[in-house]
Amino acid sequence: MDHVVSGVAKFQREVFPDKADSFRELATGQQPEVLFITCADSRIDPNLITQTEPGELFICRNAGNVVPPHSNQTGGMTASIEYAVAVLGVEHIIVCGHTDCGAMKGALNPQSLESLPHVREWLGHCRAAVEVVREQRGELGAEHLDCVTMENIALQMQHLRTHPTVAAKLAAGKVTLHGWLYNIGTGEVLRYDAESRAMVPLSEVDLPSGRSQGGSRAQA
Amino acid sequence: MDHVVSGVAKFQREVFPDKADSFRELATGQQPEVLFITCADSRIDPNLITQTEPGELFICRNAGNVVPPHSNQTGGMTASIEYAVAVLGVEHIIVCGHTDCGAMKGALNPQSLESLPHVREWLGHCRAAVEVVREQRGELGAEHLDCVTMENIALQMQHLRTHPTVAAKLAAGKVTLHGWLYNIGTGEVLRYDAESRAMVPLSEVDLPSGRSQGGSRAQA
Amino acid sequence: MDHVVSGVAKFQREVFPDKADSFRELATGQQPEVLFITCADSRIDPNLITQTEPGELFICRNAGNVVPPHSNQTGGMTASIEYAVAVLGVEHIIVCGHTDCGAMKGALNPQSLESLPHVREWLGHCRAAVEVVREQRGELGAEHLDCVTMENIALQMQHLRTHPTVAAKLAAGKVTLHGWLYNIGTGEVLRYDAESRAMVPLSEVDLPSGRSQGGSRAQA
Amino acid sequence: MDHVVSGVAKFQREVFPDKADSFRELATGQQPEVLFITCADSRIDPNLITQTEPGELFICRNAGNVVPPHSNQTGGMTASIEYAVAVLGVEHIIVCGHTDCGAMKGALNPQSLESLPHVREWLGHCRAAVEVVREQRGELGAEHLDCVTMENIALQMQHLRTHPTVAAKLAAGKVTLHGWLYNIGTGEVLRYDAESRAMVPLSEVDLPSGRSQGGSRAQA
Amino acid sequence: MDHVVSGVAKFQREVFPDKADSFRELATGQQPEVLFITCADSRIDPNLITQTEPGELFICRNAGNVVPPHSNQTGGMTASIEYAVAVLGVEHIIVCGHTDCGAMKGALNPQSLESLPHVREWLGHCRAAVEVVREQRGELGAEHLDCVTMENIALQMQHLRTHPTVAAKLAAGKVTLHGWLYNIGTGEVLRYDAESRAMVPLSEVDLPSGRSQGGSRAQA
Amino acid sequence: MDHVVSGVAKFQREVFPDKADSFRELATGQQPEVLFITCADSRIDPNLITQTEPGELFICRNAGNVVPPHSNQTGGMTASIEYAVAVLGVEHIIVCGHTDCGAMKGALNPQSLESLPHVREWLGHCRAAVEVVREQRGELGAEHLDCVTMENIALQMQHLRTHPTVAAKLAAGKVTLHGWLYNIGTGEVLRYDAESRAMVPLSEVDLPSGRSQGGSRAQA
Ligand SMILES: [Zn+2]
Ligand SMILES: [Zn+2]
Ligand SMILES: [Zn+2]
Ligand SMILES: [Zn+2]
Ligand SMILES: [Zn+2]
Ligand SMILES: [Zn+2]
Repeated sequence: MDHVVSGVAKFQREVFPDKADSFRELATGQQPEVLFITCADSRIDPNLITQTEPGELFICRNAGNVVPPHSNQTGGMTASIEYAVAVLGVEHIIVCGHTDCGAMKGALNPQSLESLPHVREWLGHCRAAVEVVREQRGELGAEHLDCVTMENIALQMQHLRTHPTVAAKLAAGKVTLHGWLYNIGTGEVLRYDAESRAMVPLSEVDLPSGRSQGGSRAQA
Repeated sequence: MDHVVSGVAKFQREVFPDKADSFRELATGQQPEVLFITCADSRIDPNLITQTEPGELFICRNAGNVVPPHSNQTGGMTASIEYAVAVLGVEHIIVCGHTDCGAMKGALNPQSLESLPHVREWLGHCRAAVEVVREQRGELGAEHLDCVTMENIALQMQHLRTHPTVAAKLAAGKVTLHGWLYNIGTGEVLRYDAESRAMVPLSEVDLPSGRSQGGSRAQA
Repeated sequence: MDHVVSGVAKFQREVFPDKADSFRELATGQQPEVLFITCADSRIDPNLITQTEPGELFICRNAGNVVPPHSNQTGGMTASIEYAVAVLGVEHIIVCGHTDCGAMKGALNPQSLESLPHVREWLGHCRAAVEVVREQRGELGAEHLDCVTMENIALQMQHLRTHPTVAAKLAAGKVTLHGWLYNIGTGEVLRYDAESRAMVPLSEVDLPSGRSQGGSRAQA
Repeated sequence: MDHVVSGVAKFQREVFPDKADSFRELATGQQPEVLFITCADSRIDPNLITQTEPGELFICRNAGNVVPPHSNQTGGMTASIEYAVAVLGVEHIIVCGHTDCGAMKGALNPQSLESLPHVREWLGHCRAAVEVVREQRGELGAEHLDCVTMENIALQMQHLRTHPTVAAKLAAGKVTLHGWLYNIGTGEVLRYDAESRAMVPLSEVDLPSGRSQGGSRAQA
Repeated sequence: MDHVVSGVAKFQREVFPDKADSFRELATGQQPEVLFITCADSRIDPNLITQTEPGELFICRNAGNVVPPHSNQTGGMTASIEYAVAVLGVEHIIVCGHTDCGAMKGALNPQSLESLPHVREWLGHCRAAVEVVREQRGELGAEHLDCVTMENIALQMQHLRTHPTVAAKLAAGKVTLHGWLYNIGTGEVLRYDAESRAMVPLSEVDLPSGRSQGGSRAQA
Repeated sequence: MDHVVSGVAKFQREVFPDKADSFRELATGQQPEVLFITCADSRIDPNLITQTEPGELFICRNAGNVVPPHSNQTGGMTASIEYAVAVLGVEHIIVCGHTDCGAMKGALNPQSLESLPHVREWLGHCRAAVEVVREQRGELGAEHLDCVTMENIALQMQHLRTHPTVAAKLAAGKVTLHGWLYNIGTGEVLRYDAESRAMVPLSEVDLPSGRSQGGSRAQA
């Protein structure tokens, strides 16, 4: 912790001065174009892997990069999504899962969560992803971690579509959904391709007129 | 969004290679010492302001850096806290609020949230902070934003104490709570001082034998 | 009510005897192929409009033919869907809306629901449909009833995809979703076409090898 | 499913033309006198067994013909009941259980529901019926299915009385509750008699001046 | 508060010594015969008005002597009732309302609860009582306080019947429900008579073989 | 029960007449200075042990003297606390636990609650107290009952601080929290001392200028 506190001092001393103008400008408002939803995992630094600056990504993080489906019960994700879409007007929503995810391991192996009642219940929002893999592969084991992780990204994109503000903007073509998978060990990012139901490389040339990175608006 | 996608390519090309060893090591596990809870606001980059590397901070982010009090209803924060404390064994929990926070402005002015039902309900978890300021200052206005932001940091620390895993570790002196306020325009970080109920500078010399940054374990 | 009671006697006297064998066979089990979800509206008789017999349709009915998205909170629809898919193994799920729906009128005009707190909250599950139409058409009025009814059918199909048992069978191609719109005055049934996001006639020739009536399995 | 689709065509071709006038009249409104609550079981056709026409019964159906007690949490039954009583002004509410009910079998044998978490929780609303039978009969087995089914009908009538709109109309003598048991194999319908706490034949002569089929309004 | 603290000292000095034997006996267990549910109102002392000693009444108190209907959501009343009936085996449950009840005044006049969101929602459990009176009397005013108070007692008795443990013991004749109304100004206690739906004097001679004070077990 | 009914008659005959004036005065309002929260246990008589009269203590009682943390879900305690603090303006809140508490025994030994689902879930609000003791003492047994009871008193005081009305008055120094432990066998009352995290004798001399019995207002 000393390290973290001295890091703050270092930031103020060595980093801030060079960026002071930009920070001063940000002091009175934000206009992020992207809502970035990812896992709380310490190994993910969204600004680092996208080489973006403060002000560019509105970032929600929780164990498992989960987006509970819309319901009349409010939670942090539901509220933050409403804020990002309706108030800030973000145009892209990225759900970014990752390799070696502890939450996904827990979802695959619920018995391991006996003493973690809240984690177990929270991962109920990932149950459809697990059931999809079980239906396809039969008895589940550690070797299905990647499959479950991918299906979870697809599922949380599904859940996003149930949120009224997101559904409305999707129908109007004003927001686009993206599913990403970040590989911690290789630094690689794959994107979810809805057509093939598979992860494919995220490369710039894939980006056409601007609205179809691994998600599409026309979907019932 | 093109910018973000090309940022990923830049990360892979220019940044990752130099850190490849460290990333490869992280590929199979994380051992963060700190749970960092902050707002989803795009202007905050926790790793930047603490000058930390991937693997050091387990980061939860939602609109308003809210920690709902423990209840039998599970949400993303409750589950993520349980995971961070019981599974990862973090030793420090930082609740980091910030200046110019849209969520705090909404909490101060609930009428502005008429068309945002979920944001309004989510900010119900900040209501005690608002009521504290109203009791002290009378009719509330935009000039009370800093007060409400500070009281909200203190309140969310209170809420943390109701979570069983946190309460247990606090009682055993195995975890310490910290309340931080990040000033977007100046880059400054203040910490909440429970004695004086005020924000004071976060300076390294304040850190004694390791367990008392703006929080203490002995508290009923 | 006398009429209803004497109807039962008439059923026993005039209808049952001819079908006694079939009813006796049904006495110990059901094997419906279809889960039929429709509005509680008195003007809809699912068996009549599909000319089916007892034993063929597992039928869930509520105001608005609503399917709440899956959550850890259990309700009647969530439980009935789980039962139909996991226990009975239905292969088709039809969400059947209808013209002149009182629930849809309420969703369009929430002020009319002031004294109906539960109806208003229940129709929160239709809010995304209303928001989609508002985003496309601007200020809403009675003339948008058909649009909202269609979008609601599409939305409830979306919600079905969040239920773990449904998601798993969809991924395995073992269940197909259908969206129908029943016109009370003309007896006509339209089906929702996901490609065109429009209602098209439900005609037999549309039915290919068996799995694509207004829904498809491959969808993120 | 082909069968169901071709049934719709048959309905339009062979059935609708003869009833076109009546359907056209229904196109702009409904005035059902009865709210009919029954199980989603495919073997029950409410209009068939009561020999009623479209427009006569407002029909709610879920697994187990369950009516959750009124609470501040809204569900489909709560909303549909509010709509039927407060908006449509139904004068009779029939809770219709049936023989060989899969939901009742599950309620009797909760262990069989291990892999059906939502069915299990939904049947928590039937727990009082099961406990009543257990208190009277001791250890429960398959032979208590009829008892539990009957007690469940009585219990759901109890639950109806907790709904504000129903309670108000009951106190004013403007609505009457009825408990029915439909025997799938014999076509017989019994009614619940509150005095004797038993099922008795539903015969027309039982019907006095109009308000006492198996339920009564004066009840604390 | 000094007064309360010195009262404790007075209790220890002047009252306890004479009852020491009885208190010592109670130190290791309780066997109350009665579950007494009443309002938190400071003017009600259950042991005083029934002239009972410690150990005789298991007492639950909240604003409005409310018993939420049984649901799968747990609250303090639901848990305390389960404990009293299933663990302690109480044989009588008294719901005791009172004159001049602030909660009932709030239920009659919900606008007065604008700034008390939780009180307003809690009194949702009394809404059926208010609706009953409104149905009978039309527009409601302060003059209907007694009616609402009585109907609330009857309603909470209804709610008690939805709790599984209570329903089971009621069916077996092992528990009896009682509705009482305590008049603060006169010290009088009336009991609710289910037959006449009215309050009548609570007199000893009314008590037959032991099971019918203002409640009865045979009720659907 | 006869005994209780005849007790009422005795109260009216022998006790009320002497206090008639005071009761008559109370008939139209209450102004309690203290909110007294204690267990439903039959052996506790708050007015007896504090030697107070009707009108002095606003009393909430449930199994385990539990105060759920504030949430957007309303329960009886949340509503009653809001009423006591915001409407009645109580200046002191006492959480009074006791020796030999059945709820605390259940919290220590959750397996004993298998057949008591609601008690088990309700005691989830005491889980942090249990975890604190487990962290300090290791494997838990019956010998830790006193520790858990004390930690539970401290925890429920923590929970009180999350309620907006309480937090506001605490910050303004207008309300004080107290934790008491009543010893049923000895009549002794201890108070919780936040400094030492221990129970100390409740003696009048401890009471300074009026605001610090076992609780303090300045606490984050
Ligand atoms: Zn992860
Ligand atoms: Zn913020
Ligand atoms: Zn409808
Ligand atoms: Zn059934
Ligand atoms: Zn009262
Ligand atoms: Zn106790």
